[in-house]
This record gives sequence, C-alpha cells and structure tokens, in this order.
Amino acid sequence: MKHAVTYQLHKTDSRTKARRGTLSTPHGTLETPVFMPVGTQATVKAMKPETVRELGREGASIILSNTYHLYLRPGHEIIREAGGLHRFMNWDGAILTDSGGFQVFSLGDLRKITEDGVAFRSHIDGSSHMFTPEKSIEVQNALGSDIMMAFDECAPYPADRDYVKRSLERTTRWLKRCKEYHQDVERQSLFGIMQGGVYTDLRRQSAEEIVDLDLPGYAIGGLSVGEPKELMYEVLDSCVDHLPADKARYLMGVGSPDCLFEGVERGIDMFDCVLPTRIARNGTAFTSVGRIAIKNAKHERDFTALDPNCDCYTCRKYSRAYLRHLFKSNEILSSMLLTEHNLHFLVRTMENIRQAIEEDRFLEYKKEFYEQYGGF
Amino acid sequence: MKHAVTYQLHKTDSRTKARRGTLSTPHGTLETPVFMPVGTQATVKAMKPETVRELGREGASIILSNTYHLYLRPGHEIIREAGGLHRFMNWDGAILTDSGGFQVFSLGDLRKITEDGVAFRSHIDGSSHMFTPEKSIEVQNALGSDIMMAFDECAPYPADRDYVKRSLERTTRWLKRCKEYHQDVERQSLFGIMQGGVYTDLRRQSAEEIVDLDLPGYAIGGLSVGEPKELMYEVLDSCVDHLPADKARYLMGVGSPDCLFEGVERGIDMFDCVLPTRIARNGTAFTSVGRIAIKNAKHERDFTALDPNCDCYTCRKYSRAYLRHLFKSNEILSSMLLTEHNLHFLVRTMENIRQAIEEDRFLEYKKEFYEQYGGF
Repeated sequence: MKHAVTYQLHKTDSRTKARRGTLSTPHGTLETPVFMPVGTQATVKAMKPETVRELGREGASIILSNTYHLYLRPGHEIIREAGGLHRFMNWDGAILTDSGGFQVFSLGDLRKITEDGVAFRSHIDGSSHMFTPEKSIEVQNALGSDIMMAFDECAPYPADRDYVKRSLERTTRWLKRCKEYHQDVERQSLFGIMQGGVYTDLRRQSAEEIVDLDLPGYAIGGLSVGEPKELMYEVLDSCVDHLPADKARYLMGVGSPDCLFEGVERGIDMFDCVLPTRIARNGTAFTSVGRIAIKNAKHERDFTALDPNCDCYTCRKYSRAYLRHLFKSNEILSSMLLTEHNLHFLVRTMENIRQAIEEDRFLEYKKEFYEQYGGF
Repeated sequence: MKHAVTYQLHKTDSRTKARRGTLSTPHGTLETPVFMPVGTQATVKAMKPETVRELGREGASIILSNTYHLYLRPGHEIIREAGGLHRFMNWDGAILTDSGGFQVFSLGDLRKITEDGVAFRSHIDGSSHMFTPEKSIEVQNALGSDIMMAFDECAPYPADRDYVKRSLERTTRWLKRCKEYHQDVERQSLFGIMQGGVYTDLRRQSAEEIVDLDLPGYAIGGLSVGEPKELMYEVLDSCVDHLPADKARYLMGVGSPDCLFEGVERGIDMFDCVLPTRIARNGTAFTSVGRIAIKNAKHERDFTALDPNCDCYTCRKYSRAYLRHLFKSNEILSSMLLTEHNLHFLVRTMENIRQAIEEDRFLEYKKEFYEQYGGF
C-alpha cells in the first residue's frame, strides 16, 4: 500500500538539525524545508493562483486551506461536486488542509468540547454544528487535499499540566479515529499532530503515542500560541528529537522570517503562516532590511523599490511612493502588490535556506540574513 | 509642428456613421472605435497593468485617469518627480486624463464657479483649492498624459437653455485659455469638449466655436447625465455632424454595452466608463447573455463558466459556483476576476465592432449582439 505523500531525506546540516528533503505528493514534489502560503477560503487572499505558482525562483509548491471555513462556506459538498478543492480554486499544486480543530477551539463561548468532538456555532450565521474526528476527515476527503491534518485540540497557553495531559491523550484517541475513518490513503495522506504544550515530558508522551501509528508525517501543534519565543524554541528543540527522521515534520501556524530560520535549525520541514498576507493588506512589507510600513510619510517621494534586494514583480515595477499612494487610497492593487512581495520574500528566503543547507552553510546564511534584517 | 496625437480615418460604414480609424499617440497606436478602462487613482481598480494590456484579443491600448483625484492624492508634483503617470503606475500604453472639471462640478456645495475657474474643497480632507483652465493643464502637464481634456463645465440635466448657453460659452473661453497655456503640443495633445446640453442648436454653436480652434480631437460632454437614453441618442446624432471627420470624437463617461453600439453607430471613436469595474466589485458581470448577479442562489452549484461564450482568464479557469463563493466571502480575488472579465468583455466587444465595420456588417453584428444579450 503506497501512501499519497512520502518524505525523502537528502542531507542533514553538519552543525544543526537543519535538513534538506523532498515531499512527494499527488500534486507534485515539494522541496523541503518549505513555506506554505495560506489560502483560508479557497484563495490566497489578493492573489491569482498562477501568481502564487510563480513566487520565488521555483514557485510555491503547496498551499494551506482551512477546513472549518470551507465546511461553512461554500460547504464541502459543493467543493466535492466541483471535483475537489484543487479544481474548484484552480490550483494544480499540492494542498494541505487543517482539521478545523484550531478554528473551532478558537471560537471560545461558541463551542463545547466532549470526548466525541466539538459542538460549535458558525461565526457567520450562528448555526449549530458538530466536528468529530470522523466529520473532519469526511470534510477533508470531500476537499481532496493531498495532506489532511488530524482533528486535535490545541491547548491554550498558559494551561496547567493536568489539562494539557488529558488534552493530548484525547488528541491521540481522536487521531486513531481519524486514521480509522480515512480510507483512501493512496489519494490523501493523514498527518498526526503532537501536542503537550510547553511540558517537554508531555511532548515526548504525545510523540511516542502518535509515532506508533506510523503516519506519513507529523506536525507540532500548540506552539506560537502566546508563549515567549525563547520558550517556543526550547520546547521545539526537544520535540523534534522524538519524531522519526524519515517522516516530514510540520510546525503549524509559524512563519515569520526569524521563526523560519529557528524552525529549520531545529529540524522542521514545513511551515505555514497568515502573517505575510495579513500584514500586506495592512500595508506592511517584509524586506531584506527589515519590516517597512508603507504608509509612513518618509516614503512619499521615495522612488526606489520596496526592497532594494528583491527581484519580485512588485519590486521590479513599482516605487515605494506608488505603493504608499495605493495604500493610502485604499486601492485593491495595494493588497495585491504587497501580498505578492511578502510571499515572494518568504518563498525565496526558504529557497535560499535550502541552498544553504545543500552547501552546508546554513548558519552562515542565517547570520547574514539576521544582520541585514536587523531586529525582528 | 506635429501634434502628439493624430487621427486617421480608414473606413466608414455604408449604412451608418460608424467608422474605423487609428489614433496615433506617443504611447502607441490605438485602433478605433476604442473603449478606455478607467484608472481613477493611477490604477485600474483590482487589475495589474499587464493584465489590462492583455484584455481582449489585442489588449487595451489606452486608459483614462483622473486629474482631480491625482492632484489631491498623491499630488501631481510627486507624479512629475516620478517621471510622469505612465512610469509612476507602470503603464506603457496611452493615457487620457480628464480635466478635473467634471469632478469639481460634482462636489455640489463644496465648490463655487467664477469666470476664473472653480474654487472647491477636497472630498478627502476639506482643504481649499482652485482649479482654473491653466491649473488643470499645469496638472495634466505634470501627469504627462497623451491626451489632455480641456477644463469645461458639464451642465446638469435638466438645465434651462439660458444657463446652458452661458455655460457653453464660458467653456469655449476656458478652452482658449487651456490651448494658450499648453505649450508642448508634440508631447501631449489637448482635446476640446463640446457642451450644450440637450439643445441641438446650442450643441451646434458649441461645436462651431471649438472646431475653430483646430484641436487634434473633440469630445462630447454633458451627455449621460440623467437624461433619457433616447434623448441622448437623438442629441448625439446631431452632435457628430458638427465635428470634423478628420479628428477623433470622444463620448465622455459612456460605456455600457448598448451605449457602445449606439455611440459607434452615430460616429463616435472613443468611450470610457467606470461601470464595468464598479459593477464587478459589486458582483455583477456583463455576459453575452446579459447581466449576471453572481451572488444569486441559483449559481451556488453552477459549475459552468461565468459567460459560456467568453475566452477570458476568469471564464477559462473558474466556475460561477467558485465566483459566487469568493463574492460572498468578501475575497479580493472576486473583484479581480470579475473586473478582468467585465473589461475583457467590453474590449473584445469593441474589437468585434471594429471587425464588423471593416467587413461592412456593423448593423448585422449589432443585431446579433442585442438578440443574444437580451434587454439592457
């Protein structure tokens, strides 16, 4: 029985856990480590899919989309009828879908957790729904993503040890139900999610439980949920050691430039984050010399490129003065151009990281990047 | 002395006043009749300029931009420093700028008209400004558009004859001041604007006064301002007869599909309208079978193209169900895809009109189009 998604390790950095691999999927082979742009509602906001495909030098190979959102609108049955999410949204690369767990847990008073699953109310119209592990996989089966995430509970930070332990054990039981329910493993692969909060022994327990299930990949969930970055890196360090070297490792919801470097250094293969697209719409750009708020008055007559070291469409064709004008005029093109730049920046940075690992100079590249970028 | 813009007539329809010509400009040769997409604030909303360039079969060759808006934000001096509007906004085709007259007259209580010009307050911050014929040309010189429009008064509808007569005579005096002020006629061409409301004798008077100034082109202003369409067509009929055959004729602010046909039939060469881009953002599409409101529930599971007879990017790649989902989810991509379709539709329709004139079957094509489109 062949799994839809398989990971192959090519090279590990001689001084860190950074590693270079490929992830084979039904919609193409991904070079890892990889950054995945987020397309919450079946679109990477303000981007045509062809433009996403052309980001960086090699193009984005995989995007993330959200089960919770698509289940509510337009409804997963409509996407199934459309022939699946790839066809519905005109994306021929790979797709990873989350399980909806994180979103329904984020609903606060609008949801109630039981052993069976989570009852919740729609943030759109207040209607009542229930997500169980089986339901999450049913929806993700309808979407037809290459990688499906298990239905888990992402415990908040801070949370006491007992709560986190009970929660991760339920997450393991839910993972077994997900695996049991999912049938066509040659079409879609299920990734398990490690939880355990900031407790390293619980992280180990969670890892051991999920690795036993021999899944094609594993994610680290429950980080970057409010804990200090240093604590996150410390926990991450120990997490990776409990995961098998021959499976992909995905750090969920993390993707600021520094986190990419710190995650890769600790052995992570996959990242996603809404930050680059969200801050773009708010007029903020990642650049090689740090973040830039384009509305700042100092850019009024600045006819240089947004990032002097960037070769993206936005930086090749437009000036900061023009981008500032668009942003202040509430023009849609502002979101389009800044989103394209920010995603290009992260995709290209990850390409550079991959090349640095291949040439065994990851730490040197990291140092160069940090020095030029300035504070994070 | 060579004018920046020159018109050449190639062929006139045997049964109507429809005509086929070319307009030579410093930024390319335009095939006429032509539809000009509107880029009010130095961007065709929700479109990259390269995408505008690729609309239809031949691509859009000219866009319109607004002097009033660019004067206020970012300011014409900034655009001058950027190297002109073409460079600022990354558009290598031709640009026509309006004079700002129409916008300042539309400000109502915020403006005051004198023989010298119009004093007005900014709709953005309430600051006080003055547009005169000289100021309008100064701003348009800074923008560097290929075609500048004269500073005129567009009389409202209804308006009494005496008012319209006094107004058009002042418009002529203002036109003389514009012509006097504008120096580099080899870089930019000034078009005069005929006024006269719905009074055919006043239209004739206006035409005779402005044609005397021997400008490279003439516009018909003050139509489509609230009068019934039949009255507009009747007035238009008489207008064109007073304009020279060897100069371009531009019907300002008109561009719905039926108006394109009716205008071309009456001898018009150039059109502009915000309608296709504005209704796109509101979820409405022009199609070969009439207007479609994409949010309509009947499109929920409609996996066919937006327009079954369209070959634009949107219609080739996406279904009505997907477009409806994007619109209902307030996704920016909705505006991008519907705008691209609507502009493609008008640009391609105008290409078809040009071909029909060449083949002397304009009326036949008009009949076909109207029958398929249904009511307007």
